[in-house]
Amino acid sequence: MAKTIGVGVIGMGWMGSVHSRSYRAVPDRFADSGLKPRLVICADEVESRAQQGAKQFGFDACTTDWKQVIAHPDVDAINIAAPNNQHVEIATAAAQAGKHIFCEKPVGRSPQETAAIAAAAHKAGAITGVGYNYRWAPVVQYALQLIRDGALGQLTHYRGRFLVDYGSDPHGVLSWRFRRELAGMGTLTDLMSHAVDMAHMLVGPIQRVVGQHKTFITERPLVPAGSGTHFSRGDDKSPTGPVTNEDYVGVLAQFQSGVVGTFETCRVIKGHGCEMAFELNGTKGALKWNFERMNELQLHLPDDNPAHDGFQILPAAPNHPGYARFNPGPAISMSYEDLKVIEAYQFANSIANRRQGQPGFAEAVAVAEVQDAVARSWQTDRWEDVTPIPST
Amino acid sequence: MAKTIGVGVIGMGWMGSVHSRSYRAVPDRFADSGLKPRLVICADEVESRAQQGAKQFGFDACTTDWKQVIAHPDVDAINIAAPNNQHVEIATAAAQAGKHIFCEKPVGRSPQETAAIAAAAHKAGAITGVGYNYRWAPVVQYALQLIRDGALGQLTHYRGRFLVDYGSDPHGVLSWRFRRELAGMGTLTDLMSHAVDMAHMLVGPIQRVVGQHKTFITERPLVPAGSGTHFSRGDDKSPTGPVTNEDYVGVLAQFQSGVVGTFETCRVIKGHGCEMAFELNGTKGALKWNFERMNELQLHLPDDNPAHDGFQILPAAPNHPGYARFNPGPAISMSYEDLKVIEAYQFANSIANRRQGQPGFAEAVAVAEVQDAVARSWQTDRWEDVTPIPST
Amino acid sequence: MAKTIGVGVIGMGWMGSVHSRSYRAVPDRFADSGLKPRLVICADEVESRAQQGAKQFGFDACTTDWKQVIAHPDVDAINIAAPNNQHVEIATAAAQAGKHIFCEKPVGRSPQETAAIAAAAHKAGAITGVGYNYRWAPVVQYALQLIRDGALGQLTHYRGRFLVDYGSDPHGVLSWRFRRELAGMGTLTDLMSHAVDMAHMLVGPIQRVVGQHKTFITERPLVPAGSGTHFSRGDDKSPTGPVTNEDYVGVLAQFQSGVVGTFETCRVIKGHGCEMAFELNGTKGALKWNFERMNELQLHLPDDNPAHDGFQILPAAPNHPGYARFNPGPAISMSYEDLKVIEAYQFANSIANRRQGQPGFAEAVAVAEVQDAVARSWQTDRWEDVTPIPST
Amino acid sequence: MAKTIGVGVIGMGWMGSVHSRSYRAVPDRFADSGLKPRLVICADEVESRAQQGAKQFGFDACTTDWKQVIAHPDVDAINIAAPNNQHVEIATAAAQAGKHIFCEKPVGRSPQETAAIAAAAHKAGAITGVGYNYRWAPVVQYALQLIRDGALGQLTHYRGRFLVDYGSDPHGVLSWRFRRELAGMGTLTDLMSHAVDMAHMLVGPIQRVVGQHKTFITERPLVPAGSGTHFSRGDDKSPTGPVTNEDYVGVLAQFQSGVVGTFETCRVIKGHGCEMAFELNGTKGALKWNFERMNELQLHLPDDNPAHDGFQILPAAPNHPGYARFNPGPAISMSYEDLKVIEAYQFANSIANRRQGQPGFAEAVAVAEVQDAVARSWQTDRWEDVTPIPST
Repeated sequence: MAKTIGVGVIGMGWMGSVHSRSYRAVPDRFADSGLKPRLVICADEVESRAQQGAKQFGFDACTTDWKQVIAHPDVDAINIAAPNNQHVEIATAAAQAGKHIFCEKPVGRSPQETAAIAAAAHKAGAITGVGYNYRWAPVVQYALQLIRDGALGQLTHYRGRFLVDYGSDPHGVLSWRFRRELAGMGTLTDLMSHAVDMAHMLVGPIQRVVGQHKTFITERPLVPAGSGTHFSRGDDKSPTGPVTNEDYVGVLAQFQSGVVGTFETCRVIKGHGCEMAFELNGTKGALKWNFERMNELQLHLPDDNPAHDGFQILPAAPNHPGYARFNPGPAISMSYEDLKVIEAYQFANSIANRRQGQPGFAEAVAVAEVQDAVARSWQTDRWEDVTPIPST
Repeated sequence: MAKTIGVGVIGMGWMGSVHSRSYRAVPDRFADSGLKPRLVICADEVESRAQQGAKQFGFDACTTDWKQVIAHPDVDAINIAAPNNQHVEIATAAAQAGKHIFCEKPVGRSPQETAAIAAAAHKAGAITGVGYNYRWAPVVQYALQLIRDGALGQLTHYRGRFLVDYGSDPHGVLSWRFRRELAGMGTLTDLMSHAVDMAHMLVGPIQRVVGQHKTFITERPLVPAGSGTHFSRGDDKSPTGPVTNEDYVGVLAQFQSGVVGTFETCRVIKGHGCEMAFELNGTKGALKWNFERMNELQLHLPDDNPAHDGFQILPAAPNHPGYARFNPGPAISMSYEDLKVIEAYQFANSIANRRQGQPGFAEAVAVAEVQDAVARSWQTDRWEDVTPIPST
Repeated sequence: MAKTIGVGVIGMGWMGSVHSRSYRAVPDRFADSGLKPRLVICADEVESRAQQGAKQFGFDACTTDWKQVIAHPDVDAINIAAPNNQHVEIATAAAQAGKHIFCEKPVGRSPQETAAIAAAAHKAGAITGVGYNYRWAPVVQYALQLIRDGALGQLTHYRGRFLVDYGSDPHGVLSWRFRRELAGMGTLTDLMSHAVDMAHMLVGPIQRVVGQHKTFITERPLVPAGSGTHFSRGDDKSPTGPVTNEDYVGVLAQFQSGVVGTFETCRVIKGHGCEMAFELNGTKGALKWNFERMNELQLHLPDDNPAHDGFQILPAAPNHPGYARFNPGPAISMSYEDLKVIEAYQFANSIANRRQGQPGFAEAVAVAEVQDAVARSWQTDRWEDVTPIPST
Repeated sequence: MAKTIGVGVIGMGWMGSVHSRSYRAVPDRFADSGLKPRLVICADEVESRAQQGAKQFGFDACTTDWKQVIAHPDVDAINIAAPNNQHVEIATAAAQAGKHIFCEKPVGRSPQETAAIAAAAHKAGAITGVGYNYRWAPVVQYALQLIRDGALGQLTHYRGRFLVDYGSDPHGVLSWRFRRELAGMGTLTDLMSHAVDMAHMLVGPIQRVVGQHKTFITERPLVPAGSGTHFSRGDDKSPTGPVTNEDYVGVLAQFQSGVVGTFETCRVIKGHGCEMAFELNGTKGALKWNFERMNELQLHLPDDNPAHDGFQILPAAPNHPGYARFNPGPAISMSYEDLKVIEAYQFANSIANRRQGQPGFAEAVAVAEVQDAVARSWQTDRWEDVTPIPST
């Protein structure tokens, strides 16, 4: 079992940096595993970004041509953090080159692309991984454990949401996220993929859905007027272009197990900084989680005494899966990036053991099938079954 | 303008008691109005209940025959707190007798019944009122004021829910609430009427809906085994009967104004004591309210400083509509029943001024139209427009 | 056992109204007790206030001379809601006339006055009551029950506070509250009396204290410039006078049982609408309560599983003492005034049974002894024992 | 200005690991600074720990003899994470060797030791740093900024606490923390140093204090019975030894600026996982922070509208100092260790610029002076002034 895994990262924007940093942290946080991801080469179209990344994280080399990453003999695993519109080409090439593949979500711009990418990887026998990082919050893993142990009884209700305001400023420029040809669908892929994957992990497959969608801000400036903290803004003089994918998606869902649910995602909603959240009820109890307080679980496990029948605010603690690798005592914050370190470990561990873990491309396809059914329901105005995506 | 209003209350269970107490409190809490509801006569099929009610609240008389209440010459207004299956008969008789009518929700067991009752009252020129009491929480009225003043900008999203666990014990007996012939629909009428009315008040009319429903507990004991705090329980030996209306309803909605929304109601969900709640977003801000903390509003009104961009926890205070009649300083709890006192005042005031207020039967019909469209969508499996209910 | 109790209320400002309303609610909320407080006569120096009170609450008579209330043969119990500087004279006269006495807190303006009043009542064999209303919140009574049942183990820590901002506006006029000769001490009597009484009930007697005090706003306008909601404001042109009692008190305390604690009260602190709150820890668990969310208890009762070790947010529910008289299901708000109704019932019940209940003047004296020790520590700059107040 | 700084870490337990990891992260998180801490050598009495640390974090060398770290010519800065009882000897030797010194808190076991260490460093002209890491939370720095900008007006009240339950199990073994000769004082140094330093930063110097202290668990097992997650437990058969420092400290304080305050620290209190918290009020607003939700600030900045006068829950965001180095958007958790990375950067930056930053040993001495006054007040039973610690 090879413990040293050569990693090539494609795309060195914010997300590529997060991944690079995460691989580097594996031997420290998971020292007992012996795993040693080695940062071999990174690529970015923007040369300075590739060079800065290499220097900052200690890659042996860098390039502006992602094909060199795939061609590199020391690279065992390709980490795709490039724009969504490049995923299909890169992933297919990586699979054909016999590399393992980690791909940031959304894997494809459309359900069909996701299915095609997954098929290519499967054919090549690649170990795959997907950036559904919210799974890895220790209190979420603890929630999963409670569900599996039957502590909540038979599950009955699920409510998932991912509400953010990054696009709520109508002067925010028409970046790739707002353009279907570059990003694919809007929040149905960008945000809903997280929300649905979480539901899949906690509750299981979804059988039927009906959805609605809306683009609240239909035109955006093409040119930034200055610079902001996070996303660039234009002004009233800037020429504008059309937003070509949806800001909002709402879904009613029926799970195969009989659980009923709702999902909502939006990128232009005021008041929600980064509300990736779920609520889940069963016949014996209930759970709530919100990424904005990612180190807390709200847990309702009533005993026989109706006098104390409320939700418990549970701080993350050493007994929750993964937490003790980061903090020795309870109620100490872990970070978003700590979840990415766990994610990097899981992927590296899958490769070292040659045993496909979760979430891989199979889970991405499962998510894509739900997205596909939701998108169909927009056309038909009715409930649609979740079905396999036909190969193209 | 007559300030003394003769009131007859029909149905002296818990809700009839609440109404009686509320009328009695009007001259004290609204002393400046000069309004004096007079408790003339109360009725209940159970004689002891009628007698106890009369004694406890000071009715001049009591009866087991509700027709005597309607026939009583001193009675100006009939307050219906009888079981749902009697509403149509009582309300129609009251209208024909020229009385004003306050009816607890749901007005009818079905949208059709509600429409019929409203038509009868309208024809008779009666002033009407409905028990959509959540409207009257001072912080909710303040939210409405903010919306009307444009503080939240153009509204974009609405999420309404009414989640309670009163039925979550499968040994809870098959009371009238669980039987379609007595209660009408399940949570679609019982709980969703509150949720939809609130949305109507805050956001305006709904254009289209699609829904799902589920009965989680399909059989219940016919006979209680002992006595519980709140609802009677049977045991495993008890014979059972079928639950004939729905426990759960989920809805996607599109408002006429372009707002998108979701609604969920359930009566068998663990962990939610009495969660009648809404969240509302606009282009300039957002609001959240939950009846479980009815004296708080969560308000997001960002200024230009992105460094302080969160929700404010707003305790109810004298500047919120209605609050100062109950408490002189901020952050002091009002009760659920205080909302019923405001409701009683509003109804009495409508009668005294002979000016129909809100919510009356028109608002109940608007709610019923939404319920009707939701119920149709269960049949057709698709989106349905909210349309007028055809007269039967 | 006489169930009808003649009540005379002296002082018909806000607090006198609250008391009058509360007595009136007893036969309704506590119908099973058979108790019938009868509102005989009310008094206020301001004639219109006396008349308005009589009309609003149904007193048989009213007067501007409080001595007539005491002299009235139908009056069994005197309810003192007059300004603090009249308490000693009224209470002494009431005791001498053989009446039972309910007195709003603070009973005396100083510990010595409280002791004198208590002595007079004791000598006369009067049943007494004091307005320490926070005791009566159902979740607080439930907390007390948990403590008595040993659920929290041996108590270790107590933190009490009463922080309000009613005086935080420096333009608020120099009302009686800010003048030692009228109010007595400042927050040491006004607010600390509640905080210490709560601690006494939950934890038991205090042995030693050391304190500090401060008057943040030393001059206030004598004349209001206009009218506010709650307290009148002056402006910069108004002549000012000195504030002669303290705005803030901080205390370290040692209880006889070995519990350590802190207390803080302030009337000029920004951000706290009405934060009468406590936190309490024991060797097996912990509790938190805040009047601003009076219908919730935060409860920490860890089991053997360190994975779920947090505070539970407990909504008030029918199993909590007193709650079911007001609401049939859980998580429904009771009001501040509902606590006063329970208080009125307790007092009436004590009289009917001729059995002194708690809190009576004995509890007020216990509070006064702590206040006296705190005030001494201001002089001596050191810890002081809580000791009996010498009779004057 | 040398950007590469040779670092030697002494003590490779948990805290030594955290520091090592933090130095390593500086060139990544603060890439623009050009700072490059170089991990030269680490020491631990336990050889395997030294070796494991060197391997895990990439030190060039390791040793069991801390003197070798100080003697190493490539080491510019000594990082002391050794047990408290070694601080004085190590720090003095480091100063004499002309090294810069970072010392974990508490610097000395007693105020006198802290003063002696500071004097030695000062004499040698060393740049110093202390592990008061809570300062560095971005929302805390933002709070500081608000205070300095006058947004809160004139400060009036401060309440600091550090409540943890790591010692609340009476079967927890008598580790070094519970023994005066090894740890120095108990929570007065361990926890109170953080609480007082935070107050110093936010409010300024303290003038007078009075305190109380208590040891709740006076005997502890000498021998662990098995192994726990975090601290070892003994059982009833284990021989026990006396706890020789205090579990609890409570303090009343007066700041030089006229602010009044309280402090409480405890290590054996149920229900508080890691509650390092403060509340602060001024004439224009208020603030609350709790490390258990370190990525949130509660902010009360009322405007002129009394209708919305509550605390805002402010998620950490890119506009808060330091946050944007870790996360691109708002409401994304940073970790405790991220604060240590900022701390390591600040120290390295001080060295590179040869400009003493805060918090250094001067701030530790300021904290020690308060601790000294508190400890004196335990002896004298009275208020004590905060005064310079006489040199020994």
